[in-house]
Amino acid sequence: MYAITIPEPGGPETLVWTKVPDPVPGAGEVLVEVVAGAVNRADIMQRQGFYDPPPGASPYPGLECSGRIAALGPGVTGWAVGDEVCALLAGGGYAERVAVPVGQLLPVPEGLDLKRAAALPEVVCTVWSNVFMVAHLRPGETLLVHGGSSGIGTMAIQLAKAVGARVAVTAGTKEKLERCAELGADILINYREQDFVAELEQATDGAGADVILDNMGAKYLDRNVRALAVNGRLAIIGMQGGVKGELNIGTLLGKRAAVSATSLRARPPAEKAAIVAAVREHVWPLIEGGHVRPVVDREIPMRDAADAHRFVESSGHVGKVLLIAP
Amino acid sequence: MYAITIPEPGGPETLVWTKVPDPVPGAGEVLVEVVAGAVNRADIMQRQGFYDPPPGASPYPGLECSGRIAALGPGVTGWAVGDEVCALLAGGGYAERVAVPVGQLLPVPEGLDLKRAAALPEVVCTVWSNVFMVAHLRPGETLLVHGGSSGIGTMAIQLAKAVGARVAVTAGTKEKLERCAELGADILINYREQDFVAELEQATDGAGADVILDNMGAKYLDRNVRALAVNGRLAIIGMQGGVKGELNIGTLLGKRAAVSATSLRARPPAEKAAIVAAVREHVWPLIEGGHVRPVVDREIPMRDAADAHRFVESSGHVGKVLLIAP
Repeated sequence: MYAITIPEPGGPETLVWTKVPDPVPGAGEVLVEVVAGAVNRADIMQRQGFYDPPPGASPYPGLECSGRIAALGPGVTGWAVGDEVCALLAGGGYAERVAVPVGQLLPVPEGLDLKRAAALPEVVCTVWSNVFMVAHLRPGETLLVHGGSSGIGTMAIQLAKAVGARVAVTAGTKEKLERCAELGADILINYREQDFVAELEQATDGAGADVILDNMGAKYLDRNVRALAVNGRLAIIGMQGGVKGELNIGTLLGKRAAVSATSLRARPPAEKAAIVAAVREHVWPLIEGGHVRPVVDREIPMRDAADAHRFVESSGHVGKVLLIAP
Repeated sequence: MYAITIPEPGGPETLVWTKVPDPVPGAGEVLVEVVAGAVNRADIMQRQGFYDPPPGASPYPGLECSGRIAALGPGVTGWAVGDEVCALLAGGGYAERVAVPVGQLLPVPEGLDLKRAAALPEVVCTVWSNVFMVAHLRPGETLLVHGGSSGIGTMAIQLAKAVGARVAVTAGTKEKLERCAELGADILINYREQDFVAELEQATDGAGADVILDNMGAKYLDRNVRALAVNGRLAIIGMQGGVKGELNIGTLLGKRAAVSATSLRARPPAEKAAIVAAVREHVWPLIEGGHVRPVVDREIPMRDAADAHRFVESSGHVGKVLLIAP
């Protein structure tokens, strides 16, 4: 088969469409014939040499895909060759075929195009595990989503609205904020022109955010803690603004608040399977009911993954960028 | 009645036994005739002027007491004059009488001396709410308790052991560590001579602590995060080592870990009542069954509260120091 490989860490040009051996599904795995993959920030970090695949994972980039089951490994039940699926991957989604533990498989939601299903696993599992399983967002609470127009952001807005929460977002342009509003965001903050702590305070009568979903890490740490409500929960899922930040424990303690940080990729298969099962139970009905949909910016041929990375690195996209297999 | 008042913030000598008006129980409150109070670090901070009572609370120090109900406010049911109780207070425990919301009352556990019951409310509610309700310590997990010989520490050791967890403690002397061992602590770390991160790593085969109960704040923040296990939870309840510390978000994210910080005193009455109810359900049977007991270092007459503060500030105590009402 062919896959995007990374012979040397570097810029987008280092992504090469290469002939490689086919993966072989192990016990409890299936082989998926990939129809589409999708780009995540983690793929860019992996390309740059900052985010090695976990032990045992495929060396190729790609944390999610959609496609059809082409073969079953030993001991697999409940799935059949030909089933249309999407999957959360530890790597290897930028490829024609990938081996997937069955706990990370999801059926394609009814009514959704097979290709577009590739936009779901990483963002839905990330948002559900952090905003709901870790931070326990409840109806009537306020969620602040940084990067509201990203793949993660567009899904977080919709899921939070679907459960009856109020949603604030930050984004860098008026156009992106308008797209967030179309998805249901209630409070729109342009981080280039406005102070999100002050804007959120004003919009919530001084209460602040019950939950914050953050991809900036250190750069926003102090402001995020200041923006939290009493009993607030800050869920960090990225460190685009640095790794080490000053934590004001006094502010945190005064609010009885908490800071968590997670990554999905590093979780062992059992934890991924638990998240996938929760997503199938709680999120799939929302998608099939038309309340939540994947937001796809554009489709790019998988062999041109370098172009897709350039585009995502320019931050011009809203939602997900798909990589279409040949 | 008489109460300890703080005419000016300052050293122990500023605590004065003064004639003051009797408190009047409001709706949903009872008047308790105090038999004993107990000293907490927060009382010392209040005396120094660093920790004002929350709005509406008694201006006198004292966050817990035991005694007998002397009168019922309007609308109180389920309690009677003469009942022996202990209580979690927002203030006013260094006094002959105190008004208490009924949600913060607990019966004296069967078999326990009325005076010694004054040593329970603050430490039991603090440990239970943080270690169990926030950090969800589970059987088989490892809890690290800083200041293992303190009132909080001696209770945390016993409660964690009672639910089947493994307990590591830090303390500053061999004698204090021996007392922790007598209470059940498995891993003893002298913080003056040993690096708790390295000691804990060695004692847990590199796994680290699933839960850490910390009273040091900034000074220990980085080391606590390094000492956490995967999926670990750091619960901060004090800032004896400072307010602002550097948080390594990369380490936190790599471990999928969380940092929470709380204080009991600032919680609204409904949250205090929920904690008191959980304590009565889960901890009282452990005390009445003989599995957990209050550790009392000594009893000092309440009018000599200044001596009690000097003693606690010297850190010579193990467990709680009681203040006996006249």
